[in-house]
Amino acid sequence: MTNPILIEATRGGIAECLYRGAFAVVDGHGSLVSGAGDIERSIFPRSAIKVFQGLPLIETGAADRYGLSDAELSLACSSHSGEPGHATLAEGMLARLGLSGSALECGCHWPFDLPVAIDLAKTGENPTQLHNNCSGKHAGFLCTALHEGEDTRGYVSGDHPVQVRARQAIEDLTETRLGADVCGTDGCSIPTYAAPLRRFAHGFAKLVTGEGVDAGRAKAGSRLIAACMEHRWEMSGTKRACLRLMEAAPGRVFAKTGADGVYCGAIPELGLGFALKIDDGATRAAEALAAAVIAHALRSTQPDLAAIYDELAVTTLRNWKGAEVGTVRPVLAN
Amino acid sequence: MTNPILIEATRGGIAECLYRGAFAVVDGHGSLVSGAGDIERSIFPRSAIKVFQGLPLIETGAADRYGLSDAELSLACSSHSGEPGHATLAEGMLARLGLSGSALECGCHWPFDLPVAIDLAKTGENPTQLHNNCSGKHAGFLCTALHEGEDTRGYVSGDHPVQVRARQAIEDLTETRLGADVCGTDGCSIPTYAAPLRRFAHGFAKLVTGEGVDAGRAKAGSRLIAACMEHRWEMSGTKRACLRLMEAAPGRVFAKTGADGVYCGAIPELGLGFALKIDDGATRAAEALAAAVIAHALRSTQPDLAAIYDELAVTTLRNWKGAEVGTVRPVLAN
Repeated sequence: MTNPILIEATRGGIAECLYRGAFAVVDGHGSLVSGAGDIERSIFPRSAIKVFQGLPLIETGAADRYGLSDAELSLACSSHSGEPGHATLAEGMLARLGLSGSALECGCHWPFDLPVAIDLAKTGENPTQLHNNCSGKHAGFLCTALHEGEDTRGYVSGDHPVQVRARQAIEDLTETRLGADVCGTDGCSIPTYAAPLRRFAHGFAKLVTGEGVDAGRAKAGSRLIAACMEHRWEMSGTKRACLRLMEAAPGRVFAKTGADGVYCGAIPELGLGFALKIDDGATRAAEALAAAVIAHALRSTQPDLAAIYDELAVTTLRNWKGAEVGTVRPVLAN
Repeated sequence: MTNPILIEATRGGIAECLYRGAFAVVDGHGSLVSGAGDIERSIFPRSAIKVFQGLPLIETGAADRYGLSDAELSLACSSHSGEPGHATLAEGMLARLGLSGSALECGCHWPFDLPVAIDLAKTGENPTQLHNNCSGKHAGFLCTALHEGEDTRGYVSGDHPVQVRARQAIEDLTETRLGADVCGTDGCSIPTYAAPLRRFAHGFAKLVTGEGVDAGRAKAGSRLIAACMEHRWEMSGTKRACLRLMEAAPGRVFAKTGADGVYCGAIPELGLGFALKIDDGATRAAEALAAAVIAHALRSTQPDLAAIYDELAVTTLRNWKGAEVGTVRPVLAN
């Protein structure tokens, strides 16, 4: 099945780039509320399911033992921008464990957002592992490992208990067996497992409705999602799409990006989860589609809020002099 | 018509991102030698046809009057990386005209290549218009305007003689009327005109064969293409795909990237031009397809060289620790 064109980028009124993809909005029973494209095709969710990977941090009691704040829980589910505040927060989490940034195994990279990278470069410093967009998640992994008395070295390996617990949580929420045949390695060196797109949407719906999942897991998931919605900047960064998508309806919409064109999220008050993937992995198209999917889900019950997300789904493209040259926008009518 | 999947990015052996697109390899008569997808669909060629836009610089005699070197001619056709050497070369061109970087109307941006941007930021400087990837092309525009006694202000406007001449050259080479209905504004503020993909391939074939174009134009085009192939770094930058694609067969293959997934080029000894567009505008897929298209064109006559381009068409993806996690590669068999 060829996925439909869901997003386009125009220039001078002509469609210049076309983005195909699929999305699924699912309720707690697993029923498809809306969708497009091949939602049974397996995708790598990448960072869009950091909440799933963070569940053991709550469920084992590690977060409470080490007194993690809600802001730190949000950072543990984040793909942050590597701004000074993010690095400092991750460093503080590690310090409470008696560890430093060198215990992380996520690797170094310059912050993805150019202005953040430029600011860091101007200080004369180079990025450390604390600046890695996944440093909060990895600090959470270390927190759980220490709490469980496990070796903190090698915690990124698929057979380390930290990753086994994360995989089992994902298997539970997606109702899918995740073996070596569907395993890839993510940018931060941990395993990422491919599963049908709709299963990830269902997993988020389970967490926010408590349906089809044990009560403790639903409570842990809701706690993490609430922390992310409250501490939006810690989960993302200045001017980031995740921040804008959650800022528009504080505490009511959860949205999380994943590399290569993925977005997942939930609208707790509607008991819905969503997942989407742009075929080619384009971030700008995934961001536009996330806004459009949220707008669509809210349309009948919250038309005013839906209109705000309709606006977020459209981005004006400008040239280097600031003049408008085109638009990134949804193609499908709602 | 839905374009075929031409490139894929894998992770853990699973196709994670799929790239659809079209390509055309055309000879001097306009005959299609090979191709895939909807090659009649109009695309914005963007920076991939800077050679076309640079023809008046030669044809008016401006380049010779101001004594431009071949390296400067290459810069005039470049999307350069904004490395110090590029900015200095552009500054030198302008100085010979009695102008400075402030005469440019391309706008400022940080160099696209992160290492180059970081190096610039570490000096404490901010980018000027000289660092804009199009500064060489704009210096060429100013050179022609001065030579013709035209106002140097407003040279980016579609009705300025500089842009009229550029449009007429593109119309001649593509045999297409380019009016307001197919006009967009490029990142550097000049007009960009959409035309069927195969026409751009044919335009390059005309320049390298001299067929269907007047002798002076073919000579000017061949001079610019030769300058680009000789001064490859000036046309691109350190570690750039255009550099690699031309380095593999010095003086024999011309390849030029354009924003949003475009590549154009020529293989003079075979009398062929090519053009390609990835539907969604992904650069990494366009680069892989450019290598694959060149390999395909060379296969029967130059199998050893084709094998080198086959290798260039495949890129290993690594995570932040340097471990291999996947591959970007052509999907279609040659």
